[in-house]
Amino acid sequence: MKDTRTHLTLTEIAERLGARLEGDGDRRVTGLATLKDAGPDQVSFLANRAYLKDLPATRAAAVILVADHAEACPVTALVLDNPYLGYAELSRMLDPLADAHRPGVHPTAVVADDAVLGHDVSIGPHVVVESGVVLGDRVVIGANSVIGADSQLGNDCFLHANVTLYHGVLVGERAILHSGSVIGGDGFGFAHDGAGWHKIAQLGGARLGNDVEVGSCSSIDRGALGDTVIGNDVKIDSQVQIAHNVQIGDHSALAGCVGIAGSTRVGRHCMLGGGVGLSGHLTICDGVQVTGMSLVTNSILEPGVYSSGTGAMENSQWRRNAVRFKQLDSIARRLGRLEKRGEGEV
Amino acid sequence: MKDTRTHLTLTEIAERLGARLEGDGDRRVTGLATLKDAGPDQVSFLANRAYLKDLPATRAAAVILVADHAEACPVTALVLDNPYLGYAELSRMLDPLADAHRPGVHPTAVVADDAVLGHDVSIGPHVVVESGVVLGDRVVIGANSVIGADSQLGNDCFLHANVTLYHGVLVGERAILHSGSVIGGDGFGFAHDGAGWHKIAQLGGARLGNDVEVGSCSSIDRGALGDTVIGNDVKIDSQVQIAHNVQIGDHSALAGCVGIAGSTRVGRHCMLGGGVGLSGHLTICDGVQVTGMSLVTNSILEPGVYSSGTGAMENSQWRRNAVRFKQLDSIARRLGRLEKRGEGEV
Amino acid sequence: MKDTRTHLTLTEIAERLGARLEGDGDRRVTGLATLKDAGPDQVSFLANRAYLKDLPATRAAAVILVADHAEACPVTALVLDNPYLGYAELSRMLDPLADAHRPGVHPTAVVADDAVLGHDVSIGPHVVVESGVVLGDRVVIGANSVIGADSQLGNDCFLHANVTLYHGVLVGERAILHSGSVIGGDGFGFAHDGAGWHKIAQLGGARLGNDVEVGSCSSIDRGALGDTVIGNDVKIDSQVQIAHNVQIGDHSALAGCVGIAGSTRVGRHCMLGGGVGLSGHLTICDGVQVTGMSLVTNSILEPGVYSSGTGAMENSQWRRNAVRFKQLDSIARRLGRLEKRGEGEV
Repeated sequence: MKDTRTHLTLTEIAERLGARLEGDGDRRVTGLATLKDAGPDQVSFLANRAYLKDLPATRAAAVILVADHAEACPVTALVLDNPYLGYAELSRMLDPLADAHRPGVHPTAVVADDAVLGHDVSIGPHVVVESGVVLGDRVVIGANSVIGADSQLGNDCFLHANVTLYHGVLVGERAILHSGSVIGGDGFGFAHDGAGWHKIAQLGGARLGNDVEVGSCSSIDRGALGDTVIGNDVKIDSQVQIAHNVQIGDHSALAGCVGIAGSTRVGRHCMLGGGVGLSGHLTICDGVQVTGMSLVTNSILEPGVYSSGTGAMENSQWRRNAVRFKQLDSIARRLGRLEKRGEGEV
Repeated sequence: MKDTRTHLTLTEIAERLGARLEGDGDRRVTGLATLKDAGPDQVSFLANRAYLKDLPATRAAAVILVADHAEACPVTALVLDNPYLGYAELSRMLDPLADAHRPGVHPTAVVADDAVLGHDVSIGPHVVVESGVVLGDRVVIGANSVIGADSQLGNDCFLHANVTLYHGVLVGERAILHSGSVIGGDGFGFAHDGAGWHKIAQLGGARLGNDVEVGSCSSIDRGALGDTVIGNDVKIDSQVQIAHNVQIGDHSALAGCVGIAGSTRVGRHCMLGGGVGLSGHLTICDGVQVTGMSLVTNSILEPGVYSSGTGAMENSQWRRNAVRFKQLDSIARRLGRLEKRGEGEV
Repeated sequence: MKDTRTHLTLTEIAERLGARLEGDGDRRVTGLATLKDAGPDQVSFLANRAYLKDLPATRAAAVILVADHAEACPVTALVLDNPYLGYAELSRMLDPLADAHRPGVHPTAVVADDAVLGHDVSIGPHVVVESGVVLGDRVVIGANSVIGADSQLGNDCFLHANVTLYHGVLVGERAILHSGSVIGGDGFGFAHDGAGWHKIAQLGGARLGNDVEVGSCSSIDRGALGDTVIGNDVKIDSQVQIAHNVQIGDHSALAGCVGIAGSTRVGRHCMLGGGVGLSGHLTICDGVQVTGMSLVTNSILEPGVYSSGTGAMENSQWRRNAVRFKQLDSIARRLGRLEKRGEGEV
């Protein structure tokens, strides 16, 4: 992988970000770094007041920041209303992977005769593309990935190495699927006959909207009947499990190790912290945030922030308190009795 | 993947399910759907009273249900004692994957000369079958899967794409292993010399019984000494971690994201909810259910339902209560003192 | 895979472990087992007083134990100060995999012309080694693994089947990476523009020190800016998620299903129990232990053992107590009022 990054001038960057440039626009830069680490050929950004202290001493070529901080900036300023967004855009301009994949099908790939490939598709070594697959333009399939029969990937999807799509998975445009992720595996469905389990064939599918990202080693199961549906612009981190027939609304974000049980519907613009668990058959309305490792067993019908659990504490203190948790109902009852007695006295 | 589903008549379905047919048996159907979604060429089922309200308006060709609901059924009834089981059986009849894999070894697969393959085995592209492997009849190995040396798979096992078996893994008949699952990886065993860690080679194996299913991206580690043992008809969901020398009894079911630490024994007919954690070296008796995201640190010797944690609540309420959890022992002691003083007064 | 284990004499074992031999040193042994299971051609060990009861009846050829237990040993004793460490070393001597991989590049592997391979490297079937990769001496790459461009693996690294390294991942010597693990995938970074998400290209890398082990299906993400850094002798179990820019100090151990959010720093000699979650941007000092499934949301600056959560209990008892948890702040306030009233009375 050669260094394919353009050496951009600050003026070019300002234009592409829509930023107001204050300072020397001819300077060329090759990278991005934090205020503390940036050298003279790198741009930095200030998006969080906690790092304002690092601004005066920065050695960056330029800093993306809001107008209020431009005066304090010791180097060229790139003024934007949302510097974090500017950082995101610049990071993508400087991404060495952005154009790293040349179109073509590697000779070791096994592509079904009836698969339909768009323009400038790139299919890596040992990839398997089964019968009936449709790939949009500029789709990249990383080495050793497998695309199951009749699956479809929209334009500009990027699958890293060792991704697995089962049959009939539908993915919109610009999806990014990371290594080890599995889309469309069977949901966990069994009927019990009193003695043991009988498999329920998972006849539904899995549909992902546009601009979905799925982290490494995450699982999105297909539906039992009907589809598992991931909306547009849904961002899913690594080690996440999404069960059959779950629906996730547009623009929601799920951090690492989240698990969502079957048929639960998550609204739009929701944010689930790391390790959050949602029970099955719930409705979570739009605009809900759940903090890390909380378990939600009831529907949430009001936007807001929700939590469960206890904070961490030193173990001996925790032991004493956790024992009392088991007595909590009794403690509350005893308190009620004391209060009543007190009232009698008054 | 062509539509290989038989167009079954309702009479044929009734016969294969052992159901009593009430209505037109000549109607042909091609699929299954919920009462709400089913169209006139689909069968539906009523297995949960919560959906009884959807029965009168269903457009399904027929509904699988218990005798008590047959009268209220506006279309053909397929009467069974356990409609959910009937649904499971019918789903498998209609599964388009059921006969999708033609026998044969793909030319890109690498199969050791001394591997023993049963009748009608299907080995996909880029599969690796190492030395000493024994595959039963009708085994299917999905694309890019790897079967380690000396492993054995019984008749009718179905491995999806990108499954990994380490060396010496023994699997019974009819196992279904989903993509990304890893069976027989090293257990997490190290000895500490006071300064750092020394690896303990994991010399045991991993044995799975008959009718085991393992979800996508799940890990079942091999034993340190002796084997990790998964019983018959054990169903394991996605993102599950089973550590070395764990034993799981027959007919138990583990939902997504469960983690079981080393040497713990889970009984028969147990059900572990999503995200449940079991500490190491525990004994969990037959017939135990643990609700989602509970942590079990002590053996459970009585069948029943077990739980830990706190329910989820609005975050500001949670913060107030979680702070008090840290004072719980003190609260209990203060209450005890008040009670004593009260008794003195009486 | 043939049985390549040397049939060692007890004298040879004693010499290699540095143990004092008491008994017949000429006996040849082929394996290791627990005190209970060991037969006459196997060695056992006693490292935990709980198993002292199994010593008198053992049929092992020899037992590794401390001097204090030598007298009670009915068979040959191999006396060591740290028998568990002796067991670890002997387990590696007896590991049938130790020399199982013959050097060479499998003809189906796709290795870039400019990749640099050390001496006696073993590259399995269908492996992909991209441009600019550097592999040290005796590196083993298991079947179907993918090594991204410009990644480097030090001497004696062992990658099992189906491992994925993204581009530019740096791994020290003697790493063991298990199947399904993914190193260097994108961190979970997005900027919000008020309407939706914009990807932040993850321009940093992932660096692993010497003697690192990573379990099956674990994810270690690359940094956003700057690297994710795993120290020397760090042991990571299966199903673990390590987010971007996390740093883990030397000799720390992370059990299964741990999740660590972005930019958190874990010190040296820390131990995280199964399912532990650490929030982002925390500092955990050296020598911290966190018990299973605890959530840590604040930095920990003192060594010690930390916990959160409630113990598991029978479900109906748990329900009563969990309801009271939601009233806990109110309970504490009511108690305070009662105490005040009591004081007024005194």
